[in-house]
Amino acid sequence: MTNILTAPSRGFEHSEFEIRTEKLQSRMAGQQIDAVFFTTEPEFRYFSGFKSQFWESPTRPWFLVVPAKGKPIAVVPEIGVAGFEQTWIEDVRSWPSPRPMDDGVSLLADTLKSVAKGSHHIGAMLGPETHLRMPAANYQTLLEHLRSHKIVDVSEIIRDLRSIKSSAEVEKLRFACDVTAAGFDYLLNNLKAGMTERQACKAMHLEMLRLGADSCPYLISASGRGGYDNIIMGPTDRQLTQGDVLIIDTGANFDGYFSDYDRNFAFGDVDRATHDAYEAVYASTEAGLNIAAPGRTTGDVWKAMWSVLEDAGALGNDVGRMGHGLGMQLTEWPSNVEGGDVVLQAGMILTLEPGMTFSSGKMMVHEENILITDNGCEMLHKRAWSTLPVITR
Amino acid sequence: MTNILTAPSRGFEHSEFEIRTEKLQSRMAGQQIDAVFFTTEPEFRYFSGFKSQFWESPTRPWFLVVPAKGKPIAVVPEIGVAGFEQTWIEDVRSWPSPRPMDDGVSLLADTLKSVAKGSHHIGAMLGPETHLRMPAANYQTLLEHLRSHKIVDVSEIIRDLRSIKSSAEVEKLRFACDVTAAGFDYLLNNLKAGMTERQACKAMHLEMLRLGADSCPYLISASGRGGYDNIIMGPTDRQLTQGDVLIIDTGANFDGYFSDYDRNFAFGDVDRATHDAYEAVYASTEAGLNIAAPGRTTGDVWKAMWSVLEDAGALGNDVGRMGHGLGMQLTEWPSNVEGGDVVLQAGMILTLEPGMTFSSGKMMVHEENILITDNGCEMLHKRAWSTLPVITR
Repeated sequence: MTNILTAPSRGFEHSEFEIRTEKLQSRMAGQQIDAVFFTTEPEFRYFSGFKSQFWESPTRPWFLVVPAKGKPIAVVPEIGVAGFEQTWIEDVRSWPSPRPMDDGVSLLADTLKSVAKGSHHIGAMLGPETHLRMPAANYQTLLEHLRSHKIVDVSEIIRDLRSIKSSAEVEKLRFACDVTAAGFDYLLNNLKAGMTERQACKAMHLEMLRLGADSCPYLISASGRGGYDNIIMGPTDRQLTQGDVLIIDTGANFDGYFSDYDRNFAFGDVDRATHDAYEAVYASTEAGLNIAAPGRTTGDVWKAMWSVLEDAGALGNDVGRMGHGLGMQLTEWPSNVEGGDVVLQAGMILTLEPGMTFSSGKMMVHEENILITDNGCEMLHKRAWSTLPVITR
Repeated sequence: MTNILTAPSRGFEHSEFEIRTEKLQSRMAGQQIDAVFFTTEPEFRYFSGFKSQFWESPTRPWFLVVPAKGKPIAVVPEIGVAGFEQTWIEDVRSWPSPRPMDDGVSLLADTLKSVAKGSHHIGAMLGPETHLRMPAANYQTLLEHLRSHKIVDVSEIIRDLRSIKSSAEVEKLRFACDVTAAGFDYLLNNLKAGMTERQACKAMHLEMLRLGADSCPYLISASGRGGYDNIIMGPTDRQLTQGDVLIIDTGANFDGYFSDYDRNFAFGDVDRATHDAYEAVYASTEAGLNIAAPGRTTGDVWKAMWSVLEDAGALGNDVGRMGHGLGMQLTEWPSNVEGGDVVLQAGMILTLEPGMTFSSGKMMVHEENILITDNGCEMLHKRAWSTLPVITR
């Protein structure tokens, strides 16, 4: 039994939130934006440090306003006020929520008006991979309140900021990755034919929590004779039998930061084609590790990985990309896609996720988590086994 | 050690999705709505049966279109197509996502146009407690595609349908409640002074997973000398000591259905005022249990519970309500609020959550989960202990 792993410290120094906020305010100044407001948990947490599982409840909206200068202002339901004592935020405005007739909308509008007195431009998250976590009808009401203002999209600014991780962020994510690695090792030593996918996932879930993960909101599996046909469903009650391949893909979370990678396991004899597919995808990841570096693009990474798979006879890839950003969310911008033009920078955390359909209805997908460094990249955890591990129990 | 509990079967008969869809279509006909589209996980799952942890990834939008007649149509990223083999859905349309320039918007618009040829009214979730899970800029593009159509709010219809649970839904939720009860019993037998809040929560988390919960996305705690000042933060690394009161509030999930209730524990001698507060809140829940029945309103339930707390000297309540709907989400419509006019009906599942500030910075909150029956209500799990349990270990 692996001992509980030693976790890094929780939370962040207040200076980290100051730096994040100043970087945003610098970009706002460059685009003459008076204020920005956020509705979603990752952005709220990124700038305020407010971390609560209460976002699981969809009832109440929460707002964070970042003015051109000074600290963010929280505009939140009364139930949340006490929680801000633990943060660097000083200005906390609240209303008794739920109040469907005006669930924070007029308070948010008043707050924005009080700080957006220059250009009258107000930033919000409107672009790809975002959503507004407030009723669409309330957003319309907000726009009516702000008809003397212009709403502009700041999602590109935010993804630029969030995609470069601080060393404290990296340490949290590295710990989540270490726990995940220990979870996969546990499976390697404990999987056996006759278990169901669900039993395998439950065993890994318990082990990762025991080792120090806070939660594992993503823990899927798929299996089948010689391969699997998807990577986002499951676990099911399908029993693992000789000739099967099992994939488990998981995102473990520590202090708000995710790992996200997978491992494949064979049960007894599987086709040579399956072993070949495993080795091709392993080699594809190697190609990604060799090319990922500052100055390269997400398209370069995609091309290096895909050319290996193409040479190996890949029939296609339904995933739509071969890796992505990672951090406060299980998947973050950018995506490793064909023609991708995002330039890698030191401090970015990415997944390399090559995958292919190698015969009808059979996929092979690998995934690893890397940090872009000054000179190249480094793995954030142990590399996958170079050949498909075979469970003979 | 409690044995693993016996879980009900997973999933639903296809007939359940047919009934749900027909009920929606009947309401749509009544309001001359040609089609409805959904973007959020609970609604997508409610009508399609598609259940995947992949919603944890915010990158790709997913859409479900319900036409005036016939089965729903899935408009989804290519990565999701294989998963629909497990559902009753036949018409699955896909695009290679992520594709920021057109992430399903034109495909969704085309699908809606092909089925919305009558009144040209299209329903969407716009009202309280909802959001659109798609980029706000893409929603604007969708509206441009649909400028010959009118978007109308169907959130009231959906909450009417979803708030009445089927017997299969009740059984899943009852199991989640049973696991939670066993988890609290485990704590009662294993808590001891010197543990931290985080250790207490981790122990309960592991136990609930072991007993059969799929996940516990909500598991918070707060503690303090004689009381606590919030119920949505934590767990922290605060060590539990003599004179403390600890609250743990959790939502365990089984097959997509949540429990949501709490328990309080004292450590050694605590003030008489704390015991009195516990007993007042217990009596308040009793008043709620006695009044909750078909024909009563959420306001009636609130009033019955609040009058007990007021008589006991309550200084206030920052929670904003005293209970709420429960089911596929940790909190669902309706809310037990002052003046609430939602009429209770058999099949609704509610939490009763009386709480009060009983002295400066000290709250006492209880919560139980109930099913409205033909004649009144029934508890979905063991009732809280009638007096504050005192841990003397």
